[in-house]
Amino acid sequence: AIEAVWRELMSGSFALELPLRIGYLGPAGSFSHQAATKQFGSSVSFEDMRDIRAVFDEVARGHCHYGLVPIENSIGGGIVESLDAFTEHASKVTIYAEAQIEIHHALLANCEPGQIRRIHSKPEIFMQCRTWLATQYPQAELIPAASSSKAAMTAAQEFVQAEAIGAQPVAAAIGNALAGSIYGLNTIFENIEDRPGNVTRFLILGREQARRSGDDKTSIMFNTADKPGALVSVLSVFDSAGVNLTHIDKRPSRRQNWQYTFFIDAEGHRDDSALSEAIVEASGHCKDLSVLGSYPRSRRIL
Amino acid sequence: AIEAVWRELMSGSFALELPLRIGYLGPAGSFSHQAATKQFGSSVSFEDMRDIRAVFDEVARGHCHYGLVPIENSIGGGIVESLDAFTEHASKVTIYAEAQIEIHHALLANCEPGQIRRIHSKPEIFMQCRTWLATQYPQAELIPAASSSKAAMTAAQEFVQAEAIGAQPVAAAIGNALAGSIYGLNTIFENIEDRPGNVTRFLILGREQARRSGDDKTSIMFNTADKPGALVSVLSVFDSAGVNLTHIDKRPSRRQNWQYTFFIDAEGHRDDSALSEAIVEASGHCKDLSVLGSYPRSRRIL
Repeated sequence: AIEAVWRELMSGSFALELPLRIGYLGPAGSFSHQAATKQFGSSVSFEDMRDIRAVFDEVARGHCHYGLVPIENSIGGGIVESLDAFTEHASKVTIYAEAQIEIHHALLANCEPGQIRRIHSKPEIFMQCRTWLATQYPQAELIPAASSSKAAMTAAQEFVQAEAIGAQPVAAAIGNALAGSIYGLNTIFENIEDRPGNVTRFLILGREQARRSGDDKTSIMFNTADKPGALVSVLSVFDSAGVNLTHIDKRPSRRQNWQYTFFIDAEGHRDDSALSEAIVEASGHCKDLSVLGSYPRSRRIL
Repeated sequence: AIEAVWRELMSGSFALELPLRIGYLGPAGSFSHQAATKQFGSSVSFEDMRDIRAVFDEVARGHCHYGLVPIENSIGGGIVESLDAFTEHASKVTIYAEAQIEIHHALLANCEPGQIRRIHSKPEIFMQCRTWLATQYPQAELIPAASSSKAAMTAAQEFVQAEAIGAQPVAAAIGNALAGSIYGLNTIFENIEDRPGNVTRFLILGREQARRSGDDKTSIMFNTADKPGALVSVLSVFDSAGVNLTHIDKRPSRRQNWQYTFFIDAEGHRDDSALSEAIVEASGHCKDLSVLGSYPRSRRIL
């Protein structure tokens, strides 16, 4: 399925006769950047965005041909910024493809392993490396950063500052090898995550529907009608229609406390008769329901 | 219901003949600390814990009589650390009560509003004050901290350092008034959150079951059997039994990628016949199912 997506993306690019512009959550060296290079190779142009909402915006405006956003990590769970962006931008973009990327963390620094006293990274990443850190660096100060690429940037700056005044450098970052090479940090230890098999699923956003591949998924977002058992009613519609749901998530509706927007992935294409009829029937149990896209199912982990 | 809980907690305390020890996520001045003071008043002893898992541990070990953990915010959604802690510690503690606390954010600093150039807080809190910050402090550097109380501590330290060298203080924190008074910062602006009515629901953990109050909720955690439609089967059991579900959440199971532990709240007490029969029947669709506790429903926002 990935190969089909890739061919389609490339053919789109040739038709446009200009390089594909791919938006992702930056700064450069983020896990989204790494995922984008794995998915799109290097013959495209990457644009780093300040936040996930900006990826949606730039695709909606046509400034980027495609945007790549993380939707779920196998350990950390749903990526709330992406789910919330769908509640605000669902009508302007469509899900064009999905990609599964294996996530590895590395300790990046420009000093000896024994000199490290301060480690920068995202709080979620510290969590994913908790056992390793407790064993290897029980005394190190863990400093939260907005992203792993920001953390690498900070560690590199602290190294330069320490060098400038002749002080002992003590800073490291946890990130990926791409961030290390961008910000000039050495990879001290690779694969320091506590659990192997850490996978993040990314969605590729576009403005046009993907072509039917024969092995598709359909993402749907809905707000249930305000009555007891409304969620069960919606899910039962798909169950009765023989449509398998592969995923469910939810976020606060932002309209009223303790009301929720739900996200489900169903097997099949929105044009399949069983699924399209189930969608119509499910809408009857909802205040509103939107199809976010039908797209080829990812079967391979990159 | 709160009053009933309070009386019960107090009577437990008199029986023990020593002050109630209440564990919460610290450091002092956190929103959990503020919630604990609203719920328990000041005639108890508060113990700040390093992380949410430690609150579970200290209750399980009997070092604290009760522990208070956030479970969901009306804007931010489920608190993943608490949900994950239940998957590891469910057998050792029980949910004894719930409390809803209104969350307000304040800008805390020891300099003039116009001098602030750097603001410390949790990334989630920056999100909740996004519009206000963009209007009032579009140029300020927003520095992520592990907690709002850590942020207040850092801002207070930076103020002292600036004073010591005769420099202009420029640091502020977003937190609550309690953190301001603990770390010696003035409240510059109150209620700077973008959405009013921001409420966090906390759970009070104990080692003994709460008494039946007549207006109870029951929290249940389960891993569905590995077959299509398993979640619908479980939810349908409660629907058919006439048991209303007030809440659903989920976290990665941590056993296998893309498998989940689900959390639901059902109206009623686990000893009610409709609910207890539904629980038995639902278990048949699950790999495992645990009742996390039956407790008086919170009807009032503190």
